[in-house]
Amino acid sequence: MSSAAPAPAPEEQPPRPVRFGIMGCASIARKLARAMLLAAPAAALAAVGSRSEAKARLFAADNGLPAAARLHGSYEALLDDPAVDAVYLPLPTSLHVQWATAAAARGKHVLLEKPTALCASDLDAILAACEASGVQFMDSTMWMHHPRTAKMRELLPADVGDVRVINSLFSFRANEDFLQNDIRVKPDLDALGVLGDAGWYCIRAILWAVDYELPKNVIALPEPVKNQAGVLIACGATLYWADGKMATFHCSFLANLTMDLTVVGTDGTLHVTDFIIPYEEKSGPFSVASRSNFAELHTGWVPQPSKHVVTTDLPQEALMVKEFCRLVQGIRDAGAKPEGKWPAITRKTQVVMDAVKASIDKGFESVDVVS
Amino acid sequence: MSSAAPAPAPEEQPPRPVRFGIMGCASIARKLARAMLLAAPAAALAAVGSRSEAKARLFAADNGLPAAARLHGSYEALLDDPAVDAVYLPLPTSLHVQWATAAAARGKHVLLEKPTALCASDLDAILAACEASGVQFMDSTMWMHHPRTAKMRELLPADVGDVRVINSLFSFRANEDFLQNDIRVKPDLDALGVLGDAGWYCIRAILWAVDYELPKNVIALPEPVKNQAGVLIACGATLYWADGKMATFHCSFLANLTMDLTVVGTDGTLHVTDFIIPYEEKSGPFSVASRSNFAELHTGWVPQPSKHVVTTDLPQEALMVKEFCRLVQGIRDAGAKPEGKWPAITRKTQVVMDAVKASIDKGFESVDVVS
Repeated sequence: MSSAAPAPAPEEQPPRPVRFGIMGCASIARKLARAMLLAAPAAALAAVGSRSEAKARLFAADNGLPAAARLHGSYEALLDDPAVDAVYLPLPTSLHVQWATAAAARGKHVLLEKPTALCASDLDAILAACEASGVQFMDSTMWMHHPRTAKMRELLPADVGDVRVINSLFSFRANEDFLQNDIRVKPDLDALGVLGDAGWYCIRAILWAVDYELPKNVIALPEPVKNQAGVLIACGATLYWADGKMATFHCSFLANLTMDLTVVGTDGTLHVTDFIIPYEEKSGPFSVASRSNFAELHTGWVPQPSKHVVTTDLPQEALMVKEFCRLVQGIRDAGAKPEGKWPAITRKTQVVMDAVKASIDKGFESVDVVS
Repeated sequence: MSSAAPAPAPEEQPPRPVRFGIMGCASIARKLARAMLLAAPAAALAAVGSRSEAKARLFAADNGLPAAARLHGSYEALLDDPAVDAVYLPLPTSLHVQWATAAAARGKHVLLEKPTALCASDLDAILAACEASGVQFMDSTMWMHHPRTAKMRELLPADVGDVRVINSLFSFRANEDFLQNDIRVKPDLDALGVLGDAGWYCIRAILWAVDYELPKNVIALPEPVKNQAGVLIACGATLYWADGKMATFHCSFLANLTMDLTVVGTDGTLHVTDFIIPYEEKSGPFSVASRSNFAELHTGWVPQPSKHVVTTDLPQEALMVKEFCRLVQGIRDAGAKPEGKWPAITRKTQVVMDAVKASIDKGFESVDVVS
């Protein structure tokens, strides 16, 4: 591209793609690489950085990266690449502060895998670095971007009413290899274990259901399961709000795949049983029972719950990438400010997770949630 | 029928109906009256006893009782009626010990509305009276008798595996009249409030899911809601088993109608969202996700959950009456012993409910479950 060419008026052509660098070749990065390809032309997969160039090359070959994608043999080299606008960072959680702050300091927008940090103060360092550089921050919680999520959100006030009780379950049955070797069971890599992994989604879903009003306190459920290294493998908690709302969640690496979110309000009940990863990529089902009464003599329900299916052409992770690109393009090309909503809900999720962890560590005491 | 006629051999004719007396004209008695009519010829609705004959007459007229049904103006008169084999007893819980023991002492079989008693020692008095008289005892937990329940029970071992986590929710949104006047909010009538009413079903469902293995301890959830008289209106608890299984339930008079039972095992997940009263009288849906895995790149589930619908010609409460009649006929006509399964599961339900109540009363301490 010649820099001498006259710049066209912004409205005459689509915005230039956001050029992503993937930082680390984790398994989840394969899904995001595909999402970036699907999110073209908003996104371009420009580079991959790994601890060795050979690993980066293997990743590029395995995941259909464009021939022009640059392969970096270190994370530093990726961050030094001037043709990278934004990084997707799926490194182990213990490395997030170091590399997310480094990325922000180099002016790269940050799409950060969850859990975003080991604790809120670490996250605050990341968010401060992003703010200082004026780059967009977003955590990679894909289901937030499914159109089903927006549809459910739209129905909640009228059809469910004042939320009273929420339950969320996220479990999957990890195999022996995972339980021995995955980063999510290693104290030096992902010290939050299942709480940071599966629990993150439950906490986010609960906060989502109450429009991100923080609970006043949390109490972890006794008898969490830990592995020999002391990392959480199964755990749960109850959350309490000032107005009497309450939520319960349970997350586990030891039970069958389950992704439940149930929201019970004064006027209705929302059920979704695949909220994190829909059963099928292009549609998301849920049901709402609203103003349910018993039939005469309690022989049935009137009305019965209504079933909904929300379809999507692009998978939720590609929609996430597109939304991230839209924000980055606004900043990069039009002088917009970073969207504060995304770091704000990340921080609330992290703060609640911290409180749950503290309650576990304190013998299941009640722990106040401090924003 | 002339007593001088030669008695036909038992196999030549169907067993004589079990002649029911309904003891008290509670609203739920209307549903049971219909069930007894539907359960003919196994059941016959022979008599109604109320505190006044006028109330009994009104009940008989409103509920299509046979013209031959006898109307008694007191509970004593009903129990003195020699043409009554069995009583259905929907009186307020505080009256259960007195009248269920009196019924048993008169040789009447006892179908007792839930909660069966205010505490296990009261229940023990009832069960002892039934045992002493050799009469059948059964609590009136209708969903136990839906063929869906048997079908789910059959699938659990192979399709769900080793149960790890159970969640049950039962709420309905009571109107102002209920919250002011229903017996279930009155300390002198149903002192267990929502725990005895809705909570009973949650506890029974949880025990059912684990084949009635008692938990070792329970911890009530903090911040239950009580009315001005101190009766529970919304509450919950977590239950813990020696092998690491856990269950959570929440019950409420303040939230939309919800009847969830979710059982997550090592191999599968059972979802039923209308377990107490099916959406439709003649069919019961549920779903089972068994050995669920992620699709490649975690873009879906393989296999997806399977949906089941179990149909029934008779509503579950009529099937309950029929089963009760079968047992009574065996005792009355063939010298069988009372079936011990039903009082045994009643007692387990009551014992867990007592522990939850004790935990609430002790400030949400862990309370051991003592059988």
